[in-house]
Amino acid sequence: MNILVKDILAVLPEGVETCSVYITDGIIASTSSAPEGFKADKTIYGAGKMLIPGLVNAHTHAGMTAFRNCADDLLFNDWLFGKIFPLEEKLEGDDVYWGVLLAAMEMLRSGTTSFIDMYYFTGDYVRAITESGIRCAYSRGMTGDGAAAEGKLREVLDEIDNWKGRDNLTFMLGPHAPYTCDEGFQREVAAEAKRRGLPIHTHLAESLTEIETIRERYGCTPIELADRTGLLTDTTVAAHCVHLTDGDIRILAERGVNVVTNPVSNLKLANGVAHVPKMLKAGVKVALGTDSAASNNSLNMFRDLSMLTLIHKGVNHDALAVTAREGFRIATKNGALAMGYDNLGEIKSGNIADLAILDLDCPNMQPVNDPVAALAYSASGAEAETVIAGGRVLVENREFLTIDRQRVFHEINKICERIGTR
Amino acid sequence: MNILVKDILAVLPEGVETCSVYITDGIIASTSSAPEGFKADKTIYGAGKMLIPGLVNAHTHAGMTAFRNCADDLLFNDWLFGKIFPLEEKLEGDDVYWGVLLAAMEMLRSGTTSFIDMYYFTGDYVRAITESGIRCAYSRGMTGDGAAAEGKLREVLDEIDNWKGRDNLTFMLGPHAPYTCDEGFQREVAAEAKRRGLPIHTHLAESLTEIETIRERYGCTPIELADRTGLLTDTTVAAHCVHLTDGDIRILAERGVNVVTNPVSNLKLANGVAHVPKMLKAGVKVALGTDSAASNNSLNMFRDLSMLTLIHKGVNHDALAVTAREGFRIATKNGALAMGYDNLGEIKSGNIADLAILDLDCPNMQPVNDPVAALAYSASGAEAETVIAGGRVLVENREFLTIDRQRVFHEINKICERIGTR
Repeated sequence: MNILVKDILAVLPEGVETCSVYITDGIIASTSSAPEGFKADKTIYGAGKMLIPGLVNAHTHAGMTAFRNCADDLLFNDWLFGKIFPLEEKLEGDDVYWGVLLAAMEMLRSGTTSFIDMYYFTGDYVRAITESGIRCAYSRGMTGDGAAAEGKLREVLDEIDNWKGRDNLTFMLGPHAPYTCDEGFQREVAAEAKRRGLPIHTHLAESLTEIETIRERYGCTPIELADRTGLLTDTTVAAHCVHLTDGDIRILAERGVNVVTNPVSNLKLANGVAHVPKMLKAGVKVALGTDSAASNNSLNMFRDLSMLTLIHKGVNHDALAVTAREGFRIATKNGALAMGYDNLGEIKSGNIADLAILDLDCPNMQPVNDPVAALAYSASGAEAETVIAGGRVLVENREFLTIDRQRVFHEINKICERIGTR
Repeated sequence: MNILVKDILAVLPEGVETCSVYITDGIIASTSSAPEGFKADKTIYGAGKMLIPGLVNAHTHAGMTAFRNCADDLLFNDWLFGKIFPLEEKLEGDDVYWGVLLAAMEMLRSGTTSFIDMYYFTGDYVRAITESGIRCAYSRGMTGDGAAAEGKLREVLDEIDNWKGRDNLTFMLGPHAPYTCDEGFQREVAAEAKRRGLPIHTHLAESLTEIETIRERYGCTPIELADRTGLLTDTTVAAHCVHLTDGDIRILAERGVNVVTNPVSNLKLANGVAHVPKMLKAGVKVALGTDSAASNNSLNMFRDLSMLTLIHKGVNHDALAVTAREGFRIATKNGALAMGYDNLGEIKSGNIADLAILDLDCPNMQPVNDPVAALAYSASGAEAETVIAGGRVLVENREFLTIDRQRVFHEINKICERIGTR
């Protein structure tokens, strides 16, 4: 299928310009003139619109959307042990399927075309991802000790063997966190990841309690522990990384780890503000994520982009900390690299056509002075109008083409009643 | 005119419930049963929607919307002296008229029905406010020294006499800031405000540079200076108040000053994070504002509400700092009080009918677990669908009934070309 996006203000790697984008079989064939023999099956006219690479939500738990706004303004332990864990005990595979579809809808409608996830009920994720067409790098969350490693890993590897081979779905190994996976388990996962060439997705240094726990158990920081167990490589995705020593930052930079900052979630759970400017200066690869709807409570990457580009200015008294351009790259190209794609997250020939078309015909986007600043500081996310992943149109004029919206709302509300989120 | 909003999930002062709201001649007549003889001229059905009091943007400069995204990621002095002041020199009255209309559109479309403003070209503000129907408490910004006071005040008071008496427009006196108004000028304004019963709207303690400047000039804090010149009363609106001593907080509480916190703007200009939880604990009245489109860069109160309820949790490591409920009250009732209204900002009988109807039929608002948490943590602002001020429908199904949207966009872009914002 050939798609032409004609005469549109586009955010290209080299800058913002009005151009036409030619898409063939899911790939951006050209951003200037029509490739030879190109005949558009579908033409989207760009007047009054803006084309961006789809945002990459580099850390979330899509299956948790039923928990949105059911556990707020609580201390962390009351939130996790009093609310989230008891609710999760009632979750069934089908609940997660509907939850992921709701998450996909929310992400697509706010310009996000791909995400890195950690959760469980793998088969239900596979169903929802396959049907919706959104792009996902999925990891099943694993916890435990070294003794349990073999059985758990076996199960996860079987799942991966069973479901691999889909265009829009890849797999990572997901050791949950240093406080839920002991040293032996981490070593087993790291070794298996190396053997299989699988990336690792984990949580690191999220809360001060974690820092204290790991210090007591192992006499080191979570980053130092993960480094000595072999978890930290240049394909590893490490979410949060809020509380870091200078030594930790050096390790993350040297190992080439993909750090995913989650500014909204880190504030909401009172964990603090990550040292993103310091990490960027040290050469750490930084991507951006929302975390789950239970701790954000949206999956709107535009809000996290806005938070990322605002908060570090304020807390560091530095108006140049994380500029709009840096932030936008973090929310797109860096996320794509963290997902393991080198041909995603930028609008250029040869890249996968994961794209969002934003409506500029709304008061908050007018006047269009600096379009990239507008993405960071003025957009709400609701401007996303037409969204394409892998060259397939998933949202058109704000309507979902692959998901039955009302059905999803209906099922999610039934789930909420059953598990008691209200 | 009688309006009935029928069977809608409404945020009432006593909690969230499904009810019907009866509006007669701009006033909420009842939130339970129909008043005697009530016959609806217009009925709005509430299924799948949520009714909230219109948000109050308690500090902005609506006339500056043409400067949106034209001066970002700059040091404060480069921003103000290098960009904003030179642009303002080119502004004409008509530019401000179109700017205020664009601001009104943006605020209305994100559920804000009233705002407190400081700018200039009063007559053009009056035109835009009158035509659009949005509610405004306007102050013309004044700077200078004691010697200039008489002339400046005379001019401003003449304007007020000339234009007062409109339902949706009130006036305040606007001494700009302690670093632009000397002690003598502040005293003159304070005395005149007292004589006339006019409220005062000013900027206080925004940046560390201001703190240093005032310390050097007067040997005290900006709050102490404003207090000794008589600027601080229980009708005073003081924007920012980022850098405060414990003594300053005591003064603000004792005088009953309406502090307006502007979290997004304070971050963006690298001024820091105000001590809002401390102020609330000390009994300071706190309202919420966006500041201008040149330092935010949107006028979306939902983003500032989200920022207000998130940032203090993170920087104070306290998950209970500024809850969703506190934040929502700050963004509505407290703003209305700061504007000088005791019958605004809550949905109850006898109050002015300034209301916003939000669409819940969108992925980020589903499931509806805790509706108030959803307002703070999940809404983007784009959910506002129908907006009423003073019982007049200004936005219906996302269309502007009082403003010609395309005309405003056209004029604003012409202004940008002329003054050179790109």
